[in-house]
Amino acid sequence: MKKTYPPIYYSDYLQLDKLLDAQNLKSDEYELHAHDEMLFIIVHQAYELWFKQILFELDSVMEMFATQEIEETKIGKCVARLRRITAIQRLLIEQISVLETMTPLDFLDFRDFLVPASGFQSVQFRIIENKLGLRPDSRITYNNKSYYSVVSNEHQGILKDSEKEKSFLELIDDWLSRTPFLNLEGFSFWEKYKDCIEEQLLLDKEIIEKNPSLSEEKKKKQLEEFEKTIEHFRCIIKEDKYNELVKNGQRKLSHKAFLAALFINLYRDEPILHLPFRFLNYCVDIDENFTTWRYKHALMVHRMIGAKVGTGGSSGHHYLLQTAEKHKVFRDLFDLSTYLVPSSSRPELPESLKKELGFYFTYKK
Amino acid sequence: MKKTYPPIYYSDYLQLDKLLDAQNLKSDEYELHAHDEMLFIIVHQAYELWFKQILFELDSVMEMFATQEIEETKIGKCVARLRRITAIQRLLIEQISVLETMTPLDFLDFRDFLVPASGFQSVQFRIIENKLGLRPDSRITYNNKSYYSVVSNEHQGILKDSEKEKSFLELIDDWLSRTPFLNLEGFSFWEKYKDCIEEQLLLDKEIIEKNPSLSEEKKKKQLEEFEKTIEHFRCIIKEDKYNELVKNGQRKLSHKAFLAALFINLYRDEPILHLPFRFLNYCVDIDENFTTWRYKHALMVHRMIGAKVGTGGSSGHHYLLQTAEKHKVFRDLFDLSTYLVPSSSRPELPESLKKELGFYFTYKK
Amino acid sequence: MKKTYPPIYYSDYLQLDKLLDAQNLKSDEYELHAHDEMLFIIVHQAYELWFKQILFELDSVMEMFATQEIEETKIGKCVARLRRITAIQRLLIEQISVLETMTPLDFLDFRDFLVPASGFQSVQFRIIENKLGLRPDSRITYNNKSYYSVVSNEHQGILKDSEKEKSFLELIDDWLSRTPFLNLEGFSFWEKYKDCIEEQLLLDKEIIEKNPSLSEEKKKKQLEEFEKTIEHFRCIIKEDKYNELVKNGQRKLSHKAFLAALFINLYRDEPILHLPFRFLNYCVDIDENFTTWRYKHALMVHRMIGAKVGTGGSSGHHYLLQTAEKHKVFRDLFDLSTYLVPSSSRPELPESLKKELGFYFTYKK
Amino acid sequence: MKKTYPPIYYSDYLQLDKLLDAQNLKSDEYELHAHDEMLFIIVHQAYELWFKQILFELDSVMEMFATQEIEETKIGKCVARLRRITAIQRLLIEQISVLETMTPLDFLDFRDFLVPASGFQSVQFRIIENKLGLRPDSRITYNNKSYYSVVSNEHQGILKDSEKEKSFLELIDDWLSRTPFLNLEGFSFWEKYKDCIEEQLLLDKEIIEKNPSLSEEKKKKQLEEFEKTIEHFRCIIKEDKYNELVKNGQRKLSHKAFLAALFINLYRDEPILHLPFRFLNYCVDIDENFTTWRYKHALMVHRMIGAKVGTGGSSGHHYLLQTAEKHKVFRDLFDLSTYLVPSSSRPELPESLKKELGFYFTYKK
Repeated sequence: MKKTYPPIYYSDYLQLDKLLDAQNLKSDEYELHAHDEMLFIIVHQAYELWFKQILFELDSVMEMFATQEIEETKIGKCVARLRRITAIQRLLIEQISVLETMTPLDFLDFRDFLVPASGFQSVQFRIIENKLGLRPDSRITYNNKSYYSVVSNEHQGILKDSEKEKSFLELIDDWLSRTPFLNLEGFSFWEKYKDCIEEQLLLDKEIIEKNPSLSEEKKKKQLEEFEKTIEHFRCIIKEDKYNELVKNGQRKLSHKAFLAALFINLYRDEPILHLPFRFLNYCVDIDENFTTWRYKHALMVHRMIGAKVGTGGSSGHHYLLQTAEKHKVFRDLFDLSTYLVPSSSRPELPESLKKELGFYFTYKK
Repeated sequence: MKKTYPPIYYSDYLQLDKLLDAQNLKSDEYELHAHDEMLFIIVHQAYELWFKQILFELDSVMEMFATQEIEETKIGKCVARLRRITAIQRLLIEQISVLETMTPLDFLDFRDFLVPASGFQSVQFRIIENKLGLRPDSRITYNNKSYYSVVSNEHQGILKDSEKEKSFLELIDDWLSRTPFLNLEGFSFWEKYKDCIEEQLLLDKEIIEKNPSLSEEKKKKQLEEFEKTIEHFRCIIKEDKYNELVKNGQRKLSHKAFLAALFINLYRDEPILHLPFRFLNYCVDIDENFTTWRYKHALMVHRMIGAKVGTGGSSGHHYLLQTAEKHKVFRDLFDLSTYLVPSSSRPELPESLKKELGFYFTYKK
Repeated sequence: MKKTYPPIYYSDYLQLDKLLDAQNLKSDEYELHAHDEMLFIIVHQAYELWFKQILFELDSVMEMFATQEIEETKIGKCVARLRRITAIQRLLIEQISVLETMTPLDFLDFRDFLVPASGFQSVQFRIIENKLGLRPDSRITYNNKSYYSVVSNEHQGILKDSEKEKSFLELIDDWLSRTPFLNLEGFSFWEKYKDCIEEQLLLDKEIIEKNPSLSEEKKKKQLEEFEKTIEHFRCIIKEDKYNELVKNGQRKLSHKAFLAALFINLYRDEPILHLPFRFLNYCVDIDENFTTWRYKHALMVHRMIGAKVGTGGSSGHHYLLQTAEKHKVFRDLFDLSTYLVPSSSRPELPESLKKELGFYFTYKK
Repeated sequence: MKKTYPPIYYSDYLQLDKLLDAQNLKSDEYELHAHDEMLFIIVHQAYELWFKQILFELDSVMEMFATQEIEETKIGKCVARLRRITAIQRLLIEQISVLETMTPLDFLDFRDFLVPASGFQSVQFRIIENKLGLRPDSRITYNNKSYYSVVSNEHQGILKDSEKEKSFLELIDDWLSRTPFLNLEGFSFWEKYKDCIEEQLLLDKEIIEKNPSLSEEKKKKQLEEFEKTIEHFRCIIKEDKYNELVKNGQRKLSHKAFLAALFINLYRDEPILHLPFRFLNYCVDIDENFTTWRYKHALMVHRMIGAKVGTGGSSGHHYLLQTAEKHKVFRDLFDLSTYLVPSSSRPELPESLKKELGFYFTYKK
């Protein structure tokens, strides 16, 4: 039977004494009080609190994904936690509007006191990126130096460690690769699917050819690009061709995982695929939200410091603008739509496969 | 000439060691790990950080308003800071959606550990309310006891002190009462205005009388209510009648201040009145945002704990629902619209008054 | 094989000629141009467009629920469409901020031209409420008359018809009542559950008794209320007692449906219950969002017209404030949390039931 | 005296018969009902309604700015209307989330029916861009063809006309150039300011030199870039140098206007400069919001159609990503921060200038 617990007091529980005593204005220290420095501190502290929460959710999901067999009951939990991350990200994006109530002139009142501190030094944010699966060679370098060149030795160690761990992207790859339906003997799903998509692509080709707003020259050019798309699609089906894409950095997921993700997107209405579909969808949401956040952050920096060097010595908003899009992790999942066909043209699943799909999707029998 | 300052490191500046080490899960302490307790803590800590920021802005505005003469340059600053408070409030409201990613069942996993802690014990929030001008006798009591009965003795002292200070509402009243145009000799503005509004009210009366969707009985009822409105309006103009309204709690602003606020709303396009108008408008925004926040909070509590007693022993969401609307501070400003006439019917200002308005609005000559 | 289709032009497809020619300012007609009337029209037209979309989604979900057996694949679709409704509602709420950029004085410039038109006459909104399950006897009356007294005869007919159709709430009731696990012979789930919840309630009782911040008198009072809660809970289990609650309007769901909803909330992590759980959760979200929207709308009306009569002759924001909370449809689902126990205390499901749950949840065998 | 007006009925006033009858699903026409096409139509119609509203506000502001002398009372009005545009833009951005409830697979169900229609054909959006001041030579071309190559002849005519009108940017330039304080004889403000900013820049230089995290090589490189900044700044002060920047497209504002904007940002707390400051600030907000909207739109398109050609035959999201940042109109105002000095280092304004500023800022005497 349950018992009662010692009484708790709100401000002790939340450790408000520590929390609300952690704002020391440099401008006050130098006796040049700058009112807006408080906002600057609080905004960044709120960011760091939320980063901690995002890491906490991400870690719990990654832990569940680190096992060989993921119980079906856990996928629902994981989906809920990824969804929570997206809800937090909405806040992070909204928070930029709060910081923008500080004008550039207000920022100048204390900006010099903070050199060379900068958001580039947010270790938690870098860990989130690393855990998601951003790898050092995919990072846009910052003044041609590694992103950890701006943090302390201790923090460098933490960041380097986080790069070595299996990333969320890799765990998802493992999970997707284990899906049983890819190994089904005798059912030539991907062959059938290739036929469907080629039909679809031929239709798209016809659309280009008949587009009255395109000149002959443009048509030719588009048709050339189009041939590349067909070629590209064939690469997706053939393992050796696909692996070349991986080798030259165009794809990150393994061949098996990529096809599994495609399959899940195509047959998401099968009960057993619904949660995996939501799961993959939230991964894309998370990527998209961080991309938006980075982008809005870059616009805000432009507005705040113009073309000046950032407080951390960076070349400022141009770097940030670039990272917005380039630091995406789940680009493969964004690209999936390229290979979809309308649900009416999908190959019919054979009964045997349907049964196989029926119950415990993630378990190999 | 300016000098450079010792280099600053991001995580030292933000005191992240303290900040990110202030989350101790009770459920971990009892070895009954409840995943969602971390979210619960972080959400409330983020609230408290933002409350600190709101207090910081509010204090700075109140300090500027505490002087006898407020320089015109400062009104702009105050408007910007009130606007910032509204931007923060948008975050506070959005944050409820983040907490709602926790389901009632998840909450039950650690709810018993927290008794009797509760958001009712947020001292900062109570101070905000007190500073704005919520007075003890306007508070809806909580289990028939004072709101500070649930906080520690030390915190009770702080709250009682904050009740004694001049509130923002009172400072605004002082400021409004000092406006010069109310004392202008010879110009019978309010007499003229009374004529305008009576004309307007007669029109409204006609509208009721001619409304085809109203039965005779309803019309009679509405016309009775209408008479009360005219009577009410007359009360606004006559100081002694108005003071009765104040006495029985229907108005909080003094007669002079109320008329000044009305005047500012009517002639807000005069350059010198523009910022005071924005200022009063942001006060209403702040009130409306807190009202919305309280209300959404009440809905969330209903959903989270149903009809059970709150963790603090309160009767839960019913109490919260009531406070949403009743704890408004600037109700008089919400009500101003009752007494407006269309800009086309406003009395023309005499040239002498226009000149008087021209330059330093807040200074008595 | 698929074919191509005749080329489409964006503005023809969207019928922009009609859409963008549907804004006639009354103030222009009377040659008293009021700039803000355009915003007023566009805001309300945008609302009506979104209401049409909400109705379209709701109808499609209700159609799927109108059949005796709902395929499992369709639950996923329904969840996605309810989720879409909540995304639209976020817009509706945000839209109020856009309308609030109009000041009360601006509104006065054209307000008289619109009498007695008012948002009370939005037929689509009333149909949404009716379809969800708001019944005439649950509506707060408006000047003591039916809500359809303000609309045209044609519209009255439409509204009356929509009241007669089976509501979404009733369809959900049917669906929940058909769930197979309630009929399982031999397994005395609800008896076991009663034991769990009584244990839980005893703990809550102990919490009250030991709460140091409560005086003896308050404790007594709370314990009395507490006894009512236990009593109330017993009513939930016993069909005849429960039916009394229904009879006197405290519950809307049938006994079977209520217990099924409770069961789904308790065992939502079972794969087969995950989507039904999300489904019920989105119903609560939708109710909560409309409640918030009504509330914010009421605050806005207060601010815009003060204590004056509304353009439709209503007594304005007081009526609106009341409807916010009272027009909730899924109150039973909000209240569910009252009857939850922590997941660690839930009765273990017997294997036979687990199997029964295993696959097609909604089908009776 | 005012009169009453004929009674109005809500659905007639809003022309709901037209509005709610303007959704014809192509998929229904082809008897291949695709549920999500309704959402697709409504979302785009809502966009077009709001574009109409934005144009309406923009036109009214531009009309006020088209006169030689802008009354001070009108600046307040203009600020309020620009602010309204930003509130609408928040909706536009949020609306993308609503469209994202449609999955790529759902879109495929009707995508082929719409070819070659596309958002590129939104004439109203293009007019907004043109009115703001986006000029044909600044547009990123779309498949190497003019943006109006995809619209009908009639619409091409409208777009070409809108390019020829004086843009909002040009009107702002005129207004800024007329500010009186630039002509003040005897006060060498810009000379003094040059001294301040050079001091500031030397400090920044010192910061680079002392930055321990930079290698010698990097320092050299940054110092070179830094020299360019100083040079750039000198260009700002000297009219002939500045005009070269204009000639090669680096600046759009005239020399006088740019300096006036800088002055307003520096002395924004002077009462008479407050509204002009807010005005310029909202221009930047509007630009930033459209940039964000374009960017989020591009991400959504990537997700929705992958690497396929857009429905309009465009190369899809890459084009959109580029336009996000490149189609900014008020870049000069974003860049202003580069040339600000902290308020403590600003040159003191002479009394004579302060008087001149005192009252009617925009009037030449």
